[in-house]
Amino acid sequence: METLASIGEFGLIRRIRRILETEGVEGSGVIAGAGDDTAVFAPRPGYDLLVTCDAMVEGRHYLAGAVEPIDLGRRAMVMNISDIGAMGGWPRWAVVSLGLADDSPVKDVEALTRGFLEELNPLNAVVAGGNITKAAGGTFIDITLIGDVETGRKVLRSGAQPGDAILVTGYPGQAAAGLEILLQGKGHEAEDVQALVDAYLRPGQRAREGQAAARTARVHAMIDISDGFLGDLGHICEESRVGAEVVEEALPVSEPLRRMAVKQGRRPADMVLAASDDYELILTCAPEDVECVKGAVSGVAGAAVTEVGRMTPEAGRFEVVHIDGSRSDATAKGWDHFARS
Amino acid sequence: METLASIGEFGLIRRIRRILETEGVEGSGVIAGAGDDTAVFAPRPGYDLLVTCDAMVEGRHYLAGAVEPIDLGRRAMVMNISDIGAMGGWPRWAVVSLGLADDSPVKDVEALTRGFLEELNPLNAVVAGGNITKAAGGTFIDITLIGDVETGRKVLRSGAQPGDAILVTGYPGQAAAGLEILLQGKGHEAEDVQALVDAYLRPGQRAREGQAAARTARVHAMIDISDGFLGDLGHICEESRVGAEVVEEALPVSEPLRRMAVKQGRRPADMVLAASDDYELILTCAPEDVECVKGAVSGVAGAAVTEVGRMTPEAGRFEVVHIDGSRSDATAKGWDHFARS
Repeated sequence: METLASIGEFGLIRRIRRILETEGVEGSGVIAGAGDDTAVFAPRPGYDLLVTCDAMVEGRHYLAGAVEPIDLGRRAMVMNISDIGAMGGWPRWAVVSLGLADDSPVKDVEALTRGFLEELNPLNAVVAGGNITKAAGGTFIDITLIGDVETGRKVLRSGAQPGDAILVTGYPGQAAAGLEILLQGKGHEAEDVQALVDAYLRPGQRAREGQAAARTARVHAMIDISDGFLGDLGHICEESRVGAEVVEEALPVSEPLRRMAVKQGRRPADMVLAASDDYELILTCAPEDVECVKGAVSGVAGAAVTEVGRMTPEAGRFEVVHIDGSRSDATAKGWDHFARS
Repeated sequence: METLASIGEFGLIRRIRRILETEGVEGSGVIAGAGDDTAVFAPRPGYDLLVTCDAMVEGRHYLAGAVEPIDLGRRAMVMNISDIGAMGGWPRWAVVSLGLADDSPVKDVEALTRGFLEELNPLNAVVAGGNITKAAGGTFIDITLIGDVETGRKVLRSGAQPGDAILVTGYPGQAAAGLEILLQGKGHEAEDVQALVDAYLRPGQRAREGQAAARTARVHAMIDISDGFLGDLGHICEESRVGAEVVEEALPVSEPLRRMAVKQGRRPADMVLAASDDYELILTCAPEDVECVKGAVSGVAGAAVTEVGRMTPEAGRFEVVHIDGSRSDATAKGWDHFARS
């Protein structure tokens, strides 16, 4: 089997370049791609640049052998596309840094590359540069994605106002449930397993919806869910210096997730609120703009958009209102990579 | 001792942010830095963007404990600044992705951050975003650096012409000699040890010189030396589809390197041409422009600029002309991370 050691770094780079050239879209604004000291891009006049970076590390974010390389590539790119979308922008150029082992199979790196393209091609975005290095201790995929947004249209985490409605797209919590199923195995209805495991292995992103939301000019704050609903809404609270009140009863719970919760005797809301990587969006806007924003977001591709609570004036006060009227403190329940593990 | 595990990911991010805010320059064009889904930048009208990415992996590019974290930070940033300089551009915004261990000391990450700033501050460039993840198998530092260059002024690897003079800045080969000394220990003159080891541990870069060279509009091709003189000149040959002839006698050999070669019975030229990370520049230009380019480059800060050979018409023919008139084939002697190790 061909490996990195057998074809060498430059050999592998040639293979990757060939896939990018023959299977990738042309993109726009790329003046010089891989093959020089740097990639060269022409920014669009009237646009600001958005730059994000997310790494996936073997053993922490994926287990080599347990995930198909093409899904790994898709997922790594989705994480980054989602961040651009959460600013209201559009992804344009990706730079991919791979840490690989001597015995990394070439076909896996090729499949990984195809995973990147599956996510980038529909958005007319490209892999335009990168780096390969040997990382004997553990492989990693580190992507820097550059996008852009019309000047003045970006939506930050810091713009939420007291009284704002809190909206969320889709059905968060499914990806984490899917991961649980993968780790624990059986005991679930077949069709539910499929839906939840797919949510984990092949998550989507809401970049088009984020852009549509930004274009309404009515969205005050936006973030994508990568640390879990509570964790990410907490980031909005912190950056906006406001509080939040989330109504348990209003939370969107998918049918597969609800059935899994019932079967296990758990509260569905706990599974929606906790750590998850669904890459849905949380948005805030004035109550009178809820219909406008919902319409713009769901108009893109029919995504569910649910109003789940309100931003409140008191910074640091972050509560979940339960069905019986009682309240729980929701602060510090977010996901912290180091403190938790 | 404080570690990542003890203060958590978000705690560490706060520490890094504080250092960046109090010890970093303000930079320019940063609309929103760390703390949102993405960083946001305003590109300069009339400029193209340059994006480069280089990773350093523990065990491969550094041994934890053997290198001071501040030097590691400087070195990681220098590698990237050098790539921007080799395009004729100016570094502006860095995005830093760190893979860390639970027991990584907080003070080391702080020192690493100060190393980044030592290199960025004098150039009015900033760390404007990043990512931290746990990488139990081995730590890494992956930097994406964004710079810019006046539209039309960039210098690619692919522009070399047959007959071009080949110029090189400084004294390549010293960094590799310094690494040898570190790995093998004694047997060298004290002052030579210092100079060579410093070249390895605390390399400089030639971004200002690269920009000055590009502004002459006389430079046909440029690259920075990170794979070694022969390897990087080979990249120019390949991308420009030309050959090259390097004259051994003309190569710049520093006095410390010459003394080390003599003491060990080696040819100094071999040490200049082989794999090294000196981050000097190789430039090509028409013979009649050599004085102009030399003047512009050495005018920045007095760097030595040496003419060492000519580009030749035959693609794939890449030779070193020795002092006795004999010739060696220099192809395939470059550095290949995987095939070599």
